[in-house]
Amino acid sequence: MTIKNVSKNKVFDGWHAQYTHDSAVLNCNMRFAIFQPSNVTRSHQVPVLYWLSGLTCSDENFMQKAGALRMAAKLNIAIVVPDTSPRGEDVADNENYDLGKGAGFYLNAIQAPWSRHYQMYDYITRELPAIIEKNFPVSGVKSISGHSMGGHGALIIGLKNAQQYRCVSAFSPISNPMQCPWGQKAFSAYLGNDTESWKQYDACELLKAGKAQLPVLIDQGDKDNFLTEQLKPESLLAAAKVHKSVVEFHLRSGYDHSYFFISSFIEDHLNFHAKHLFV
Amino acid sequence: MTIKNVSKNKVFDGWHAQYTHDSAVLNCNMRFAIFQPSNVTRSHQVPVLYWLSGLTCSDENFMQKAGALRMAAKLNIAIVVPDTSPRGEDVADNENYDLGKGAGFYLNAIQAPWSRHYQMYDYITRELPAIIEKNFPVSGVKSISGHSMGGHGALIIGLKNAQQYRCVSAFSPISNPMQCPWGQKAFSAYLGNDTESWKQYDACELLKAGKAQLPVLIDQGDKDNFLTEQLKPESLLAAAKVHKSVVEFHLRSGYDHSYFFISSFIEDHLNFHAKHLFV
Repeated sequence: MTIKNVSKNKVFDGWHAQYTHDSAVLNCNMRFAIFQPSNVTRSHQVPVLYWLSGLTCSDENFMQKAGALRMAAKLNIAIVVPDTSPRGEDVADNENYDLGKGAGFYLNAIQAPWSRHYQMYDYITRELPAIIEKNFPVSGVKSISGHSMGGHGALIIGLKNAQQYRCVSAFSPISNPMQCPWGQKAFSAYLGNDTESWKQYDACELLKAGKAQLPVLIDQGDKDNFLTEQLKPESLLAAAKVHKSVVEFHLRSGYDHSYFFISSFIEDHLNFHAKHLFV
Repeated sequence: MTIKNVSKNKVFDGWHAQYTHDSAVLNCNMRFAIFQPSNVTRSHQVPVLYWLSGLTCSDENFMQKAGALRMAAKLNIAIVVPDTSPRGEDVADNENYDLGKGAGFYLNAIQAPWSRHYQMYDYITRELPAIIEKNFPVSGVKSISGHSMGGHGALIIGLKNAQQYRCVSAFSPISNPMQCPWGQKAFSAYLGNDTESWKQYDACELLKAGKAQLPVLIDQGDKDNFLTEQLKPESLLAAAKVHKSVVEFHLRSGYDHSYFFISSFIEDHLNFHAKHLFV
């Protein structure tokens, strides 16, 4: 679990840095980014917010565009941003942006040729936190958030691992991947045709199967081009009713799917995470 | 002076939008970005901060990475970001990043092949403000800021047009282009070998020639890779002393040349601009 520093920039009196490492789970070399607030020491450890990005993104989009680091510095929260899929020349890919590299969907693939590298669920929930907690002065306290495909990832990971994450939030998540083109395409490729096996990675199915055991916050723009066909927040809200799960949901008038939207409300999300991380 | 909208995103309850237009001054089609806070109307006009970007940048870098729009929305300031050079297939270029497209240096070129399009000084000081003031509900009150090559641009434009801009600020500006490799390369190409003609575009020479008639704020990181060879803030501070020009200068410990640095201090700069824009 050796990590190699590849960039370091001072920001808001803390540090943004990128690291690469060999991933045993993904069977390739990976890069992640971490923001550490200024007063982190071995004796003063901070909680970690994991951010999962959307289709085509890397660790850089959120760190550069979300405007999150000001509040993370103020609230004394570290942020870790992984890549969105395995990477490298020998990693299976597809010519479309919504399958293969940049489109790992935060699940464990079981179909060839994807299964050799596409094990993002295990990477995010097990290997990456172990690397972070071994190499940085962070506490074991964590939460998770994400955007679009990463919002889907944050929701399923949070709902399936409520003992590991204090809370979960999402911007414009793919709420019901089994019932939208992005999700159906990815799940068919990575998981095969047995749709029963898809349910473990669908936030609606997870909510229908049991009450959410952690706080959930979702923001969605009502001018999002993907709202009706791909994101389907109404399905998530309906699924949350089955076991009376509490999902705080905000439909934001006039906002779209971009980082301009995320930047406008990231402060609310960071305050939500801080509230639960510092209980 | 017809402008064409090419993108529009709601952000912080205001709007980020990009427009293209034919530039008579630059003899090509250009794109700019504008942020308008939410309560802009024909009857409630806002002042404009012009932001000039650095080498290789377009109108997008600042708008996406600086984290400026939150404070601009709060302070009720519009921000306009032009491109950094003329653009298009018939515009002269160079294989290096620091000459030609993306490297207009905010001057009026007098040498072939550059002089046909590279008239960024006139574009920024005359044509673009006229377009903005004709097409958007902004007041005529303006100020200017920028980064690196754009910091140079902001300084020379502010110092030469103190009646037009309320104040000027810069991050990591090329302070003395006549005495650094970036500036010498660009000025030789665009202006020719008569170094006397270079002085009108060198902030140090402008300060030596007369007192700054507008407030100046500069932030510079002390871990900036370009500090010693290219940026030379000590030359600017020395030049400011000649006529006792007041330049507020902050050397920021540990910060580099990146947008991580800019984002960390943009709030200070926006407050500085607001103070002078709303006098």
